[in-house]
Amino acid sequence: MTDSLPAAPARTWTGRVFIATSLDGYIARDDGDISWLEAADPAASHSPARADSGAVTDYDAFMASVDTLVMGRATYEKVLTFGFWPYPDHRVLVLSTTLNTTDPHVTVVRSLEEAVAALGTGGVYLDGGAVIRSFLAADLVDELTITRVPVILGSGLPLFAPGLPTIALDHLGTAVSGNGMTHSSYRVRR
Amino acid sequence: MTDSLPAAPARTWTGRVFIATSLDGYIARDDGDISWLEAADPAASHSPARADSGAVTDYDAFMASVDTLVMGRATYEKVLTFGFWPYPDHRVLVLSTTLNTTDPHVTVVRSLEEAVAALGTGGVYLDGGAVIRSFLAADLVDELTITRVPVILGSGLPLFAPGLPTIALDHLGTAVSGNGMTHSSYRVRR
Repeated sequence: MTDSLPAAPARTWTGRVFIATSLDGYIARDDGDISWLEAADPAASHSPARADSGAVTDYDAFMASVDTLVMGRATYEKVLTFGFWPYPDHRVLVLSTTLNTTDPHVTVVRSLEEAVAALGTGGVYLDGGAVIRSFLAADLVDELTITRVPVILGSGLPLFAPGLPTIALDHLGTAVSGNGMTHSSYRVRR
Repeated sequence: MTDSLPAAPARTWTGRVFIATSLDGYIARDDGDISWLEAADPAASHSPARADSGAVTDYDAFMASVDTLVMGRATYEKVLTFGFWPYPDHRVLVLSTTLNTTDPHVTVVRSLEEAVAALGTGGVYLDGGAVIRSFLAADLVDELTITRVPVILGSGLPLFAPGLPTIALDHLGTAVSGNGMTHSSYRVRR
């Protein structure tokens, strides 16, 4: 090593986004409601997809590809309303500056840096608008699968928001569910 | 006719949207720049699509399906920068409260109501964010084809904006261009 600048440590994990939005880019209504998501899916989530290669449209397969979840407080509190813990086999980090909890399912981290320091190897599922935007802004997202639900909501909590850098993506594939949802996978170009 | 309420006059035209956005929903950068759209398309706009049935992905075919365009002032002024008039075979209405022009290619209308009064029969191509949102809000859009360009822009002029009503759509089909653009067609559910 003769370089005068130390090399940045190689990242040992893969940042993955897997999220559904309305056509106008909302991931929930203003109050966090996601019933429109289920309402758009009367045929259930495993309807046949007409898939191009490369689209990750199966939630179970996606979950098998990740070891750790990072979510924000709003997403965590939404998950708590489900009445069961849906991630028994995954480590879950909740990124929040204020949350105090004794919930044994999760580890609270106070900053993006603390979250990153807690990540090891493997796939990391980034969930919730604020977490996704923070990781995008820090160039810590590698792949995104975005499901588009055939509805215009008119208002709600956005996936993207002004202020992100311009990020070029390579399209990996698109599939369509029988219920009219489209699932497109992208890799961040580097 | 024994009903006490007069029936609303049947609409004799079809409102059609055919527009490209970034993944984060912008149709242009803040200054109107759309060079990112061409930059994302080095293989030109007629690359082979792997089409489901129902997606209208061919611009020429789409243009053959419409008789009239309605666009806002910003879109009109963008078109003027092209250096040629791209709609020689279509009637073009420009919806603007302030524009004064002697351009023989266009007819200026001052309000949504005036635009609607000027429409006859056939397909109407609704172009530009403000025009599209106005027609969506007035329930005057029948079909939308949205092309998603594989880039996150971070800021720009949006296609959708808060304040629209919730609008349920039926998915008609999705195609993918060789350059990673996806093209999804929807019909407004009534």
